[in-house]
Amino acid sequence: MTVAVYLPDTETNDWWVDMLHDLLPDWQVMRMDAVTEPASVRYAVVWRPRTGDLAQFPNIKAVVSIGAGIDHVLADEKLPADVPIIRTVGDDLTQRMREYVALHVLRHHRDMPRQLQAQRDHDWHSIVVPVAPNRVVGVMGLGNLGAAAARTLADLGFDTRGWSRSPKTIDGVEAFSGAEGFDAFLSGCEILVNLLPLTDETRGVMNAELFGKLAEGACVINCARGPHLVDDDLLAALDAGQIKQATLDVFHTEPLPEDHVFWDHPAVTVTPHIASRIDAGTGGRIISANLKTFEETGTCADIADAARGY
Amino acid sequence: MTVAVYLPDTETNDWWVDMLHDLLPDWQVMRMDAVTEPASVRYAVVWRPRTGDLAQFPNIKAVVSIGAGIDHVLADEKLPADVPIIRTVGDDLTQRMREYVALHVLRHHRDMPRQLQAQRDHDWHSIVVPVAPNRVVGVMGLGNLGAAAARTLADLGFDTRGWSRSPKTIDGVEAFSGAEGFDAFLSGCEILVNLLPLTDETRGVMNAELFGKLAEGACVINCARGPHLVDDDLLAALDAGQIKQATLDVFHTEPLPEDHVFWDHPAVTVTPHIASRIDAGTGGRIISANLKTFEETGTCADIADAARGY
Ligand SMILES: NC(=O)c1ccc[n+]([C@@H]2O[C@H](COP(=O)([O-])OP(=O)(O)OC[C@H]3O[C@@H](n4cnc5c(N)ncnc54)[C@H](OP(=O)(O)O)[C@@H]3O)[C@@H](O)[C@H]2O)c1
Ligand SMILES: NC(=O)c1ccc[n+]([C@@H]2O[C@H](COP(=O)([O-])OP(=O)(O)OC[C@H]3O[C@@H](n4cnc5c(N)ncnc54)[C@H](OP(=O)(O)O)[C@@H]3O)[C@@H](O)[C@H]2O)c1
Repeated sequence: MTVAVYLPDTETNDWWVDMLHDLLPDWQVMRMDAVTEPASVRYAVVWRPRTGDLAQFPNIKAVVSIGAGIDHVLADEKLPADVPIIRTVGDDLTQRMREYVALHVLRHHRDMPRQLQAQRDHDWHSIVVPVAPNRVVGVMGLGNLGAAAARTLADLGFDTRGWSRSPKTIDGVEAFSGAEGFDAFLSGCEILVNLLPLTDETRGVMNAELFGKLAEGACVINCARGPHLVDDDLLAALDAGQIKQATLDVFHTEPLPEDHVFWDHPAVTVTPHIASRIDAGTGGRIISANLKTFEETGTCADIADAARGY
Repeated sequence: MTVAVYLPDTETNDWWVDMLHDLLPDWQVMRMDAVTEPASVRYAVVWRPRTGDLAQFPNIKAVVSIGAGIDHVLADEKLPADVPIIRTVGDDLTQRMREYVALHVLRHHRDMPRQLQAQRDHDWHSIVVPVAPNRVVGVMGLGNLGAAAARTLADLGFDTRGWSRSPKTIDGVEAFSGAEGFDAFLSGCEILVNLLPLTDETRGVMNAELFGKLAEGACVINCARGPHLVDDDLLAALDAGQIKQATLDVFHTEPLPEDHVFWDHPAVTVTPHIASRIDAGTGGRIISANLKTFEETGTCADIADAARGY
C-alpha cells in the first residue's frame, strides 16, 4: 500500500513524507517522484499537484488535499474522474481562521491603518467609529470556516450577516442564500469577508459590481482564494473611494510577485497566505486518521463533492 | 437645583452642558465657571476637575465622573470628604473596551507589526505563531471592563487568566487574586492587558519587576491609566527584549507630548486614549438617569468607593 506525497516545495515535501511515514508505519509513504511502481499507489497526499501527476496511478483510491480547499486538485485537467477527494479540516484550521477574521475585521472596524498613520504623524487625533453592534459585517461562505468566523464576529458584537448556497441557520447571524439573496446580503455591508471555495461559480465574485453594492467606503477581506478577486476592479474601487481598505491573504500568483502593486498600496494590507495554515503536526494526524478510516470503510468524513467543486 | 459641568476642553464642555440641559429640562445645568450662586449647586459632572473646583460648593450632594475611573476626581486634594462619586459605566463602554482588547491582543498574537514590516519589505515571509489555545493571555483587573475583556479573549480561544483584588469566578478564565496570586498570574504570561483602576496600590504596577516575571518576549497593553506604567522601565525592557511589543492607549501626560519617544519607537503602538470612549449621547443618558435616581432615592448604582480608590 503506497501513499505518494507531492508539495511544490521540496523541503516541505520531504518533511511531510517523514511525518506521514511515522504516523503510518505499516504503509509505504514516499515522494511522488520516487515512485517506481505506479500501480502500487493507492493514495496521494497533495498540495497543488501538477497536471497529470495523479493520472499516472491506475489504482488510486483517493486523493487527499492538504488544506480545506480542493480547487488546487481540480485544477489538474487530467485528474482521474470519480476519484474521491478528501479535504483536510479540523479545529486547528478553524481556530486560526477565526483569529484572522476577528483580527482583520476589528482592524478595519477601528480604522487601525489611519490610527497608525496618526502615530507616524505624532498626531493625537481620535478617530471616532461606531460601536460594533452598529457595524454591518458580512461573511460570504458559511462552511466550516465561514460559519465559525461569522459566529465569532457575532460574539464580538458585530451586526453580522452570512451568505451561502443553501439556506443556513446560525445563532446571531442573519443568513442569506443563493443568487436571490445576494443583493440584500451586500446592501449596507461595511466590512465584507470572503470565505467561499473557488469554483466556476465563485471565480471573480469580488468584482466592480459587488463593490458597488456594498456600503460606500466599505472594507473587504479576502482570505479564500486569489482568483475570487478581480484585482483591477479592486484597484479602481479603491481609487474611487468606493472601497476604503482591503486585506488580502491570497493572490492570483503566490508568492505575490515582488513588483506587484499591492505591496506598496497604502490601502491594501498583504499577508502571505497565513490566515489559516494548518499546523503540520495536526494536519498529519488528521490526514493519517482519514486515510486509515478510508482504507477500512471505503469512505470518511470531509470527502468533497468534486462535481459541485468544493 | 443646579448641576455644574466641567471638562478641560471648552468646546466639549459646552456640548455636554447643552446635552444635559436637554435631558434634564427641569434642572438648571450650567458650566462650572458660569455659576454665580455656589450654594445652589447640588451636583457636579466632571472630567479632570481642577484642584479646589468642587470644594467651592457647600451643598454638593454627589460628583459624577464622566468615565469609569474616579482617579481624576480623587486627584483633587481639596475634594470635600464623603461626597459620593458616581462613575459612568454601561454597555457601550464595555463593548468598546472588548473590541480594543480583542483587536490588540490579536495584533500581538499574530505579530501584525512584523507582518506589516514584511509587507513594506515585499517579503513573502510567513510568521508562524501558536494557535490561540496555546497562547497565555492575562488581564489585570476584573471589574466591569476587565471581566468582559477576559471573557471575550476566552471566547476567542486564548488560554486566559485574570487577576483582581478579591477572588472571582469567570467562565473560561483562570482567576488569580491578591498579592499572593500575583506571581503565579504573571508567570508564563505572553500577552498582558492592564485594566486596573489607578490607585495608590496600582500606580507604577507595570514596572521592571513585573516585566521580568512575564514570559520572555511578552507583549503588554495598557488601556487603563498612564501612571500604571513606569515608562523608563518599559523602554529598558523593550531594549533588552524582555518585552517584544507594547500598545499604549494612556499616558502620564495626555495628549502625549509631540516629542515623546513613544511616538517613533518601533516596538510601541500609540493610540490616543480611545480604547473605550463613552459615546457622549449614551453617556449623557446614563448620567441623567443616575442623577434622577440619586435625587429621588439618595443613592444609585455605580457609586465608587473613594476610600478604596475605585
Ligand atoms: N487563506 C487561508 O489560509 C485558507 C485556509 C483554508 C481555507 N481557505 C479557503 O476557504 C475556503 C472555505 O473553506 P471551508 O472549509 O469553510 O469550505 P466549505 O466547508 O466547503 O464551505 C463552503 C461554503 O461556501 C458556500 N458556497 C459554495 N459555493 C457557493 C456559491 N456559488 N454561492 C454561495 N455560497 C457558496 C457553501 O454553501 P453551502 O453551505 O450551501 O454548501 C458553504 O457554505 C476554502 O475553499 C479555501 O479556499 C483559505
Ligand atoms: N483607556 C480607556 O479608554 C479607558 C476607558 C474606561 C476605563 N478605563 C480604565 O479602566 C479602569 C477599570 O475600569 P472598570 O470599570 O473595569 O473598573 P472596576 O469595575 O472598578 O474594576 C476594577 C478591577 O480592578 C481590581 N483591582 C483594584 N485594585 C486592585 C489591586 N490593588 N490589586 C488587584 N486588583 C485590583 C478590582 O478588584 P475587585 O474586583 O476585587 O474589586 C476590580 O476587579 C478604570 O479605572 C479606568 O482607569 C480606561
